[in-house]
Amino acid sequence: MRLLDEQAIEDIAVGAAVLGTGGGGDPYVGKLMALQALKNNGPIKMITLDELDDDAFVVPTAMMGAPTVLVEKVPSGKEIFNSVHNLEDYMGKKIDVTMPIEAGGVNSMIPLAVAASLGIPMIDADGMGRAFPELQMVTFHLFGVSACPMLVSDEKGNSIVFKTVCNQWTERIARAACSEMGGSVMDAIYPMSGAEVKKASIPGIVTLTEEIGKGIREAKEKGKSPIDVVLEITGGFEIFKGKVVDIVRKTQGGFVRGESHFSGIDEYKGSSLELNFQNENLVAIVDGKVACSTPDLIAVLDAETGHPITTEGLRYGARGVIIAMPCHEHWRTEIGIETAGPRYFGYDFDYTPVEELVAKNKAGE
Amino acid sequence: MRLLDEQAIEDIAVGAAVLGTGGGGDPYVGKLMALQALKNNGPIKMITLDELDDDAFVVPTAMMGAPTVLVEKVPSGKEIFNSVHNLEDYMGKKIDVTMPIEAGGVNSMIPLAVAASLGIPMIDADGMGRAFPELQMVTFHLFGVSACPMLVSDEKGNSIVFKTVCNQWTERIARAACSEMGGSVMDAIYPMSGAEVKKASIPGIVTLTEEIGKGIREAKEKGKSPIDVVLEITGGFEIFKGKVVDIVRKTQGGFVRGESHFSGIDEYKGSSLELNFQNENLVAIVDGKVACSTPDLIAVLDAETGHPITTEGLRYGARGVIIAMPCHEHWRTEIGIETAGPRYFGYDFDYTPVEELVAKNKAGE
Repeated sequence: MRLLDEQAIEDIAVGAAVLGTGGGGDPYVGKLMALQALKNNGPIKMITLDELDDDAFVVPTAMMGAPTVLVEKVPSGKEIFNSVHNLEDYMGKKIDVTMPIEAGGVNSMIPLAVAASLGIPMIDADGMGRAFPELQMVTFHLFGVSACPMLVSDEKGNSIVFKTVCNQWTERIARAACSEMGGSVMDAIYPMSGAEVKKASIPGIVTLTEEIGKGIREAKEKGKSPIDVVLEITGGFEIFKGKVVDIVRKTQGGFVRGESHFSGIDEYKGSSLELNFQNENLVAIVDGKVACSTPDLIAVLDAETGHPITTEGLRYGARGVIIAMPCHEHWRTEIGIETAGPRYFGYDFDYTPVEELVAKNKAGE
Repeated sequence: MRLLDEQAIEDIAVGAAVLGTGGGGDPYVGKLMALQALKNNGPIKMITLDELDDDAFVVPTAMMGAPTVLVEKVPSGKEIFNSVHNLEDYMGKKIDVTMPIEAGGVNSMIPLAVAASLGIPMIDADGMGRAFPELQMVTFHLFGVSACPMLVSDEKGNSIVFKTVCNQWTERIARAACSEMGGSVMDAIYPMSGAEVKKASIPGIVTLTEEIGKGIREAKEKGKSPIDVVLEITGGFEIFKGKVVDIVRKTQGGFVRGESHFSGIDEYKGSSLELNFQNENLVAIVDGKVACSTPDLIAVLDAETGHPITTEGLRYGARGVIIAMPCHEHWRTEIGIETAGPRYFGYDFDYTPVEELVAKNKAGE
């Protein structure tokens, strides 16, 4: 068990936004919630999977919806607790521990706020090791855990319990409800035992995001490039450096979908990159060739500061370094690729691990 | 308490479809469910409001969605019981009595099937005295009763509990979910005490629909016009007789909306009628003048048999008599008109009771 302070929250927010691959919500809004909870309730206890009791009642907490919405429809702060408490009532037991479902600006922060406010620990693990747009895209799902009973609540006070036949139906119906509720809701989802969490989650992800954030923060004083630091920690690759020349973004059906185009600078001059996203970055195409695809991670970092730029934060003229990072091995299984690979999102090509693509594209030069 | 047999079900189905004003679902599908339940479980007990215990746990049961959908997506028969039992689990008590929420082909029949199958009585009362398209359009709502906790279930096995801040939000969110679940679902809604039902429902409606159905059935052998019989029982008015010359129907957002146009026959030759509907008939316009509007009732009866024709059953060339019937006085209050009057549905005129419109239009001739 260790205690997370203000600096840890700042670092986690930055690091989670890197693994958030453009999605997962605006770090600013989520961070405010976590910092406020910390201020009111003192440091946050974080435990490792080893420290987790097999019988513990674990409830991941998260925001669902289009990150673009959250920038304008700020949470009241109460809705996540409505979801947790209504789930407790529904299941007839008290939450022991919470955890993030994914890395990302908002969704790395909400469990911190919940843990601080309820005085419970948070687990150093999540269900993605990155961010993904749909709720069945979690390692819990890959291991057969049900998202239900799932509780969603909005800032108006509306609350819904879902009990569905499969996680894909939870996604469909909850997404439709979320859309009608204003485009973003807070949920208590994938209630699990500690034993299930140990089997089905990605360990150490909070510590990893903290390291990434800290690495970016300290790079300058250590005379290092923050981009290099991120690549070192994540085992990633720089795949492009460019200037945003076009962005198409559409908030629709509870998602923000679109693509952005970068024109190469420095050693990439003359090349172009197309980035496709659905909340999160899904596919990066450099000069017509796939350079990285989901479930591997694609992040846009500010060329100067190394800070991650989210889907909704991308602006015309922004200079970014586009990096690719290998996903957790859970995603590279048959069911993992079926659940979150390029074909699921409608792309007509098979998944190739990013390190192979990098080697191939290098050999082809 | 009296027992309802097969003949009663047949009559109620016909009579409820008259008060269903074009909506409430296809009587055929609902009737099959009720007849099957009767066959399996024996006659259905129906009690009056006077016989209802103030402390009874009453759960109205109904179908939600576009009636056009139900013609193709036939219920599995299990979903309504999933809704009832999940509501029982949620509220921690067993259902004592059920009742219809509205008159209409399907929704007059479902409570019969539930009562027979569960061996509980049904109340001779409903929440509309007609059919309406949205779930807050019930007298329960006018008297401040909450639709929640509301349970909806689909034929796949998905089930949702809604707990909202107001009935309009229940309608919005449940409608969106219903639409995603395939366009029709079964629900257990407006759970109430017997005392609340006594205050907030329209009494005697099942008996009234049975009388209407029986009247239509027996008219021929009594040498009477079935249309006249219906007008006599309901205190209604014939406002048109014509042939369908055009129908526009669109199933959208969980509703079927549209309009049908009739060209006058017999004494109405040279006149035309436009009928606007959203699941139910809302406004009838004869030669450019409003002849009847919601919350008063507009029904299309087959010119020969007197049988009601639903919104989805209307066909080009069909000959119908269009009748108007005064609604229950609960709908003629300020909140009643606000909830289900013409302005709610986007029409730019005030509600005038149908008997006044008939007198005015007659005087203007």
